[in-house]
Amino acid sequence: MKFSVKRIDMESDGSYIVVLNETRAISEGIHGADRVMVVKGNKSLVAITNLSDITIKSHQIGVFEEVWKKLELDDDETVDVFPIPSPLSIEYIKKKIDGGKLSEHDMFSIIEDVVKNKLSRIELSAFVTGCYIRGLTRKEIFYLTKAVVDTGDTLQLNRKIIVDKHCLGGIPGNRTTMVVVPIVAAQGLTIPKTSSRSITSPAGTADTMEVLANVNLPITELHSIVEKTNGCIAFGGSVNLAAADDKLIKIRHPLHLDPEGLMLSSILAKKVAVGSTHVLIDIPIGPEAKTKDTRSAKRLGKSFKRLARHFSMKVNVTFTDGSQPIGNGMGPVLEARDVLKVLKQTHDRPIDLESKSLFIASEMMKMTGIRKSMEKASEILRSGEAYDKMKEIIEAQGGRPDVKISDLKPAKHSKEFCADRSGKVIHVSNHATARLGLACGAPMDKDTGLFLHHHVGEHVESGERLFTIYTRTKSKLDYVYSLAKQFRPLRIV
Amino acid sequence: MKFSVKRIDMESDGSYIVVLNETRAISEGIHGADRVMVVKGNKSLVAITNLSDITIKSHQIGVFEEVWKKLELDDDETVDVFPIPSPLSIEYIKKKIDGGKLSEHDMFSIIEDVVKNKLSRIELSAFVTGCYIRGLTRKEIFYLTKAVVDTGDTLQLNRKIIVDKHCLGGIPGNRTTMVVVPIVAAQGLTIPKTSSRSITSPAGTADTMEVLANVNLPITELHSIVEKTNGCIAFGGSVNLAAADDKLIKIRHPLHLDPEGLMLSSILAKKVAVGSTHVLIDIPIGPEAKTKDTRSAKRLGKSFKRLARHFSMKVNVTFTDGSQPIGNGMGPVLEARDVLKVLKQTHDRPIDLESKSLFIASEMMKMTGIRKSMEKASEILRSGEAYDKMKEIIEAQGGRPDVKISDLKPAKHSKEFCADRSGKVIHVSNHATARLGLACGAPMDKDTGLFLHHHVGEHVESGERLFTIYTRTKSKLDYVYSLAKQFRPLRIV
Repeated sequence: MKFSVKRIDMESDGSYIVVLNETRAISEGIHGADRVMVVKGNKSLVAITNLSDITIKSHQIGVFEEVWKKLELDDDETVDVFPIPSPLSIEYIKKKIDGGKLSEHDMFSIIEDVVKNKLSRIELSAFVTGCYIRGLTRKEIFYLTKAVVDTGDTLQLNRKIIVDKHCLGGIPGNRTTMVVVPIVAAQGLTIPKTSSRSITSPAGTADTMEVLANVNLPITELHSIVEKTNGCIAFGGSVNLAAADDKLIKIRHPLHLDPEGLMLSSILAKKVAVGSTHVLIDIPIGPEAKTKDTRSAKRLGKSFKRLARHFSMKVNVTFTDGSQPIGNGMGPVLEARDVLKVLKQTHDRPIDLESKSLFIASEMMKMTGIRKSMEKASEILRSGEAYDKMKEIIEAQGGRPDVKISDLKPAKHSKEFCADRSGKVIHVSNHATARLGLACGAPMDKDTGLFLHHHVGEHVESGERLFTIYTRTKSKLDYVYSLAKQFRPLRIV
Repeated sequence: MKFSVKRIDMESDGSYIVVLNETRAISEGIHGADRVMVVKGNKSLVAITNLSDITIKSHQIGVFEEVWKKLELDDDETVDVFPIPSPLSIEYIKKKIDGGKLSEHDMFSIIEDVVKNKLSRIELSAFVTGCYIRGLTRKEIFYLTKAVVDTGDTLQLNRKIIVDKHCLGGIPGNRTTMVVVPIVAAQGLTIPKTSSRSITSPAGTADTMEVLANVNLPITELHSIVEKTNGCIAFGGSVNLAAADDKLIKIRHPLHLDPEGLMLSSILAKKVAVGSTHVLIDIPIGPEAKTKDTRSAKRLGKSFKRLARHFSMKVNVTFTDGSQPIGNGMGPVLEARDVLKVLKQTHDRPIDLESKSLFIASEMMKMTGIRKSMEKASEILRSGEAYDKMKEIIEAQGGRPDVKISDLKPAKHSKEFCADRSGKVIHVSNHATARLGLACGAPMDKDTGLFLHHHVGEHVESGERLFTIYTRTKSKLDYVYSLAKQFRPLRIV
């Protein structure tokens, strides 16, 4: 069949998508999401069909940017189109949905097609839903993780020991990574850390590090930074590590489908891809943390360890207090200030962030056989070695190493939220503070957010400030203040 | 947030879709498939976001045709965009995925959002997959069917008895509807029949009827045709009956997910929507039919009856022989010729098609209390009353009632496929003949297809023709002939 090209000036999600006229397509026996071979001269590709009944005429084929570029098309040019069978991986997805077990080959075939954008969103969603409902066996989780690693980029560092950490998250302000990486790297360990941006909090590690340096680093640059400084703090989304996983996360997001198997493989695949040998997983536990109780935290910890063994990777798990925010700042600039205060050892540094960072750094050092790791970690931080290392990393990542805390100014509009009674703070809500931070404009407006003056256990007097709100406009300030009155994120009795 | 409009000259699947720059969106906390309110002046709508990292710049918002039209936008115009929560129906989809039971309210909420195009394909696919894996309870199937009817158009005929039929399909050439409708309508019964186009066969009833008349009938036209003639044979896709179902079918197609609950509701919702009181469901049984054995056919039959009772609709089920094609022609024109031969009672009419049609027509008549229904149906057909009724219907649907069989010419290139041995035909493959018919170009090339000279049980001599292939080009003829040699659709022993 011959069709006349109509350009759609828009890329799809990487897939090759063509659009045919619905009436024509159906009469040709072609349905939405069917595959067609599109041929122009000696170039060809397999595309996923969408159907249109208005803008595409019977003789036309609408092509999204990816197809347009790949086939070097011109408008109104003629291409040949043949229906072809759908990818075999769809059969394996069906197998999973039907309750079957996927072999290593089946899983690789699915993940390879995910990376190559050969599957439509309908098919990807069916796969994720199938994994969620049917669950994945230990073997399947291993095959999945291996496939994700094998189909993505890997970092090839010639180091015997490579350490890494991951925190399960859900705790606002929890920027330990930016303290841990310089301590551990200053100790001489290699730590090629990739982090995420915020999903539901006022800042992710990548958003906060971006206040100080460039975090969008291609893999070659990341490689040379780590070679030079032993460490880095990069945005994971900018490197092609575990590319399949990034695509699956986008599908999981709308329905918040977090099948444990996909979550385990998602986290560990990225560690395997950078060649980690020793990984510390931090599982904060709390009513408003991702993990609610010790029992499920322990079960999860075991699953991590079991999966890691397949990759000859040592995993230790720490369970930490996830009942309230860590540090005082929430929002990229305010959190970056906290981090610099700890590294510079100022008198007003957040002690909870320092303690947790030292604990994690020392646990990581201990894993690699370093003795008296807590003393060593504390000494590295106290002596300024960690701060010097952070400056090295900031410089390597294209930032200003001599940045002063006073250079990092919070947004100009601010208002204090004060206690309406005297008493003891018995609860600081992760959810409510995160919501308020987002309402301020963080992480997009980097200098906005909250600064928390009190944590759980502290005594406050009526009228004393509990937290300060920073926003870029007066109207937003009033809005967040009214939200805060509604949420009441600190409970005082 | 303000964005500058960039038109995408393409409609999506009816949903309001906008495309934001990926980096910008993520920094604003907006993810793919999140919902945003798009405001222009006093007009606004809720759109599903897609993300782009190339063609859409940070300040731009790409809008598909539906949004462009609804908001009456201009290129480079500024619109306001606010993130808003996702529809509640997503919670109910999640509930089904998590194994919960959906209430009438939950199901209605999902189906309403399906019809209003408020759900993304990712979410729809998760719903279909969830229904497939978790199954639907009888109550859920009832709620689903009711919701599909209530959210679609309905045909309001002021008749006490309205009959209908449905065949589960999979049998090439099986054009009983086009014989049954005129018989039943000539008897004075009302039969507003909507049919589908081909999905995997050389012709669907709508494709074949289209050879004789217009089948794309809006509901008002369909109403007046049935008022006038008692019957019609229309393409179901052209009316908005069970609109939600049409959308779900598109999602079910790529993975061939046919959850029984969705299938039952899909079929009966259309019958409820036209006000049917008496419905005959024909379930052909055979190794190459959709239903393979009597046991599952009986189970399915019971499910149909049970669901129908909720709508005070009487359903009878017939089990028929689905082991081989019915009639001689396969392809719209060749099948239309078969139908006219039966209606005109020519000596060369296909007796198997006539017998099956009479059986179904008489069973339908019997359901409504008509006695000696087989005698009556036969008489209506023999006397020419059925043919006269068909001419009335053809005319009402804008066709030529006086069309002659010889006017319906098969495609000009033809070749006979002959027996290479003498013996008895013991098998005619539904799959192989359908594949060959499709390869000829049917249903798109309406005059192409196969004409079967022999059925199971007949004796053939070596060299005698088994079937004739009709195509529009010589090269296709040779191609189909070579395929036929490979498939050998008739087995002779």
